[in-house]
Amino acid sequence: MISNDMKLKMEKSMQIVHKAIEMGNGHTILSTGITGDDARLARAAVEGGATLLEPNHPALVLARGHRGITSMHEAEKYRHEISIDQMAEVTRGVRNVVGEDIYLTVGVPGGFTEVKPTILQEEDFLKMSLAGANGLHTHKSSLKDLEELVKKAHKYGLCVDAYIGLPDDLHTFGLSAEKPEEVAKVAKQMESVGVSMVGLMTGMSYEGVEAGEIHPFLKERLQAMVEAVKIPTLAEGGINLDNYKAFKETGVNILVIGTSIDKMVEQAATKVVSDFLTDY
Amino acid sequence: MISNDMKLKMEKSMQIVHKAIEMGNGHTILSTGITGDDARLARAAVEGGATLLEPNHPALVLARGHRGITSMHEAEKYRHEISIDQMAEVTRGVRNVVGEDIYLTVGVPGGFTEVKPTILQEEDFLKMSLAGANGLHTHKSSLKDLEELVKKAHKYGLCVDAYIGLPDDLHTFGLSAEKPEEVAKVAKQMESVGVSMVGLMTGMSYEGVEAGEIHPFLKERLQAMVEAVKIPTLAEGGINLDNYKAFKETGVNILVIGTSIDKMVEQAATKVVSDFLTDY
Repeated sequence: MISNDMKLKMEKSMQIVHKAIEMGNGHTILSTGITGDDARLARAAVEGGATLLEPNHPALVLARGHRGITSMHEAEKYRHEISIDQMAEVTRGVRNVVGEDIYLTVGVPGGFTEVKPTILQEEDFLKMSLAGANGLHTHKSSLKDLEELVKKAHKYGLCVDAYIGLPDDLHTFGLSAEKPEEVAKVAKQMESVGVSMVGLMTGMSYEGVEAGEIHPFLKERLQAMVEAVKIPTLAEGGINLDNYKAFKETGVNILVIGTSIDKMVEQAATKVVSDFLTDY
Repeated sequence: MISNDMKLKMEKSMQIVHKAIEMGNGHTILSTGITGDDARLARAAVEGGATLLEPNHPALVLARGHRGITSMHEAEKYRHEISIDQMAEVTRGVRNVVGEDIYLTVGVPGGFTEVKPTILQEEDFLKMSLAGANGLHTHKSSLKDLEELVKKAHKYGLCVDAYIGLPDDLHTFGLSAEKPEEVAKVAKQMESVGVSMVGLMTGMSYEGVEAGEIHPFLKERLQAMVEAVKIPTLAEGGINLDNYKAFKETGVNILVIGTSIDKMVEQAATKVVSDFLTDY
């Protein structure tokens, strides 16, 4: 009774994404980390021009001081302990303050390759959709798991962005593909199972690369993905103000930026507190 | 069976406060707002030298996008809808990441002059104490209500900081006292019912005052409070990097700083997002 409604809902969501890419002459950012899950800073990011935001469960581990964890690396190990209800609450809160014209893609426990069996139930998709998510930010590592997820997501009007990684990545954040032609093939497969946007993990490939540059191999992989699909493309990991131009030059549409925003925000807090405590 | 334990717990808590004041030659800050309730930014504030932090329920209205509220003025009207369990969760999370040497004073629904009957139950004090609070940040407006609160807080080892306001303040944030001699009298009464720290609301008195200065009447009121009591004193409201020196000159020990930190942090987020979206 709602299948066409949900199709329309997804189309409307993707219009926001396409508009953002168009406004930025082919490029935009997906603002995550602290700007994805704190309503005050989500608004601040929107103020700065962001129209795509991503709350996610590993960042919430850090936001909530879960288990006393203070590094993202450690947070990835325990992110499945964040509940779908916490993610729904966060999504609802951010939606409340940013309005309907902002695209929210949400990382939820079970949407990534989790270290413990974390099963997204049918009602979880409904819950996230009702909470105000436009889509799910996912990191499944098999086409079969991803296809299953996409099907249920679509049933409740949720788009899906999904990722490709390297077989030896420190954390498993996507379907594995190494050479550019493999990347192209996997990207096409992901597109064919209904993924709305396909991304490449780019965080682990910086050794020996000059500031402002990206590794030639990474460049080739990004370009292969961009050329392979018609849907919007993303790059996630290691993007900062020094190298983001090099990323844009590959033709990738959306730069997922978390840590480098978080760092600036945290530094601002540290500085202002320190200024108040300094006698000058 | 725990009354002496709790006495010792409170003494240990106040040692943190006294040490912070000593380290700052008579002055320190109580960092609140976003640095009080987000574990990432609480750590950033501690990094900047803060040892006193204050999570509170109106700030959580903003953090969680509750009802879509985006201004502190509006948040005050609905802060009682934040639950004690949410405040306990926030306190536990911040405590997890900042360790035991940081003083956490927590604003909880029922600890302020709420607009709907919001009753702190005995188990709520226990809950907050177990969550890791050193004290409660309160804004009761009668000595009787305050005394009742202090008694129960002490039972579970929680110190209390409480405030004095003007009768015509926009929000009722404390016991009312206008002239300096009234401030002194009320401050002494608060000290005598067992309050661990007494503060003055200073946010509403800036009209016609030059940048960097504070109103002479406010100055007199602050000095009257400082001279009247032996316990540490606080000033809360309207303190920024332009005027904090003028505040310190009154002899007040602790400057409660929320909005002006939040602003800097939000501006940092807006700027970095805008930098990523700008082609330069």
